[in-house]
Amino acid sequence: MNRQQLIDQIRQKKSYLCVGLDTELSKIPQHLMADDDPIYSFNKAIIEATSPYAVAYKINLAFYEQYGLSGWKSMEKTLQAIPENCFVIADAKRGDIGNTSKMYAKTFFETYPYDALTVSPYMGHDSVGPFLEYENKFTIVLGLTSNSGSADFQLLETQDGHVYESVLKKVASWGHPNNLMFVIGATKAEKFAEIRKILPDHFLLVPGIGAQGGDLKNVSLYGLNKDCGLLVNSSRGIIYASNGFDFKEAAANEAMKLQMEMMTYLQSI
Amino acid sequence: MNRQQLIDQIRQKKSYLCVGLDTELSKIPQHLMADDDPIYSFNKAIIEATSPYAVAYKINLAFYEQYGLSGWKSMEKTLQAIPENCFVIADAKRGDIGNTSKMYAKTFFETYPYDALTVSPYMGHDSVGPFLEYENKFTIVLGLTSNSGSADFQLLETQDGHVYESVLKKVASWGHPNNLMFVIGATKAEKFAEIRKILPDHFLLVPGIGAQGGDLKNVSLYGLNKDCGLLVNSSRGIIYASNGFDFKEAAANEAMKLQMEMMTYLQSI
Repeated sequence: MNRQQLIDQIRQKKSYLCVGLDTELSKIPQHLMADDDPIYSFNKAIIEATSPYAVAYKINLAFYEQYGLSGWKSMEKTLQAIPENCFVIADAKRGDIGNTSKMYAKTFFETYPYDALTVSPYMGHDSVGPFLEYENKFTIVLGLTSNSGSADFQLLETQDGHVYESVLKKVASWGHPNNLMFVIGATKAEKFAEIRKILPDHFLLVPGIGAQGGDLKNVSLYGLNKDCGLLVNSSRGIIYASNGFDFKEAAANEAMKLQMEMMTYLQSI
Repeated sequence: MNRQQLIDQIRQKKSYLCVGLDTELSKIPQHLMADDDPIYSFNKAIIEATSPYAVAYKINLAFYEQYGLSGWKSMEKTLQAIPENCFVIADAKRGDIGNTSKMYAKTFFETYPYDALTVSPYMGHDSVGPFLEYENKFTIVLGLTSNSGSADFQLLETQDGHVYESVLKKVASWGHPNNLMFVIGATKAEKFAEIRKILPDHFLLVPGIGAQGGDLKNVSLYGLNKDCGLLVNSSRGIIYASNGFDFKEAAANEAMKLQMEMMTYLQSI
């Protein structure tokens, strides 16, 4: 999916919601555990319930890798259950020297049909470059993350602002808004105005609302641009809204609440 | 394997060589391609040929993930082919918010029996912490990497030295030499003396000799400590020494040459 197609989906659904599939066996409804592949059954149901309200899905690879081969199988099947009009993100935080990043790019952009992959910037230019060579695929580079540890290195002061600001400026110069996005945590809503000065056009993937405490209103107020420019992710707040027989309805309801709030903010752009 | 057992292996084999299994179908000998799992056949042969000279193996996950499920199967089987007295590293550069890093730790330290995992420090304390909770497992955090892109962010100047120096100091305070190592590229041999002032006791995983141009002599001169404290990795220079019928002998020969050179440097500690 390219940038314009993503914007069209956002306009149609009046939503910039991304649903995070951080699926854990210990948290899904008990009645699914008899299924052959409970993770897939759960994900499929969640996708069916939330896809009227979400424009994107984010698969958090760690949750699948923990189960080894069977987890990768569940991940593969989950990918097939996501409707074609949704933008699909591999949240895998990959990145390595050039010849190795090339293999990760192949994994997520060829072997598997993801639209986007999260990438860590620590190793610099040649670690990010191979991902940018794909047309109509997005590299989503970590900028300022939502967790408490983000202060340790991302907020170190350099001669040119904080480390994360150097990351945003330098990485933005390696690509363009059609192949690059950045992760900016919702818990840093006060930074969005400054970040929009550095990145007026890029989409930002924003985790951290819900369980992590970020605030959709402020993120939207300072983060929206003329094309929307935001994908706001919620994982636990939607997918674990209930662990009973009503889990689909509960997830749909939480997704719908976020979508309705987003619709009001979209009216201002 | 714990730190003392690793040191014992280094003393027995008179080697601090790590062989990197960056295995690609396009580079292995043609006659293996008829096997059921050519990647596994190749790795098994390389391991048999090099294990007299190597104390560690490093599996570069990207090379396996690119083939999807079949790649993960080859990786699983490869793990089983590595002798028990070798230290096994998952080179996966993982790292995410706390609840997700916990899943990656489970993947590589429970689901799979790795001794160590490479981790990116960009997301800070809670992204590294979950890996450090395992006894007799090592978290190998990226410090100063061997690639050209390392200059982009690792060498930014902060009030407290370069970014990578902040990483070494801060991350070292979260663990100890029994559960932490750092990646320092061989192409930065001139930095090893300074780095040893910050990290006198930690093991350093050193990629970048051979294909990337790093120099074993200088790395050893400035990097060895009283317990050795180095694992020097070679991947392409060993495993692709020949792609003919003599690939095992050629790999053994390259590994032996490095081991013999290492033996002379070990005499000085």
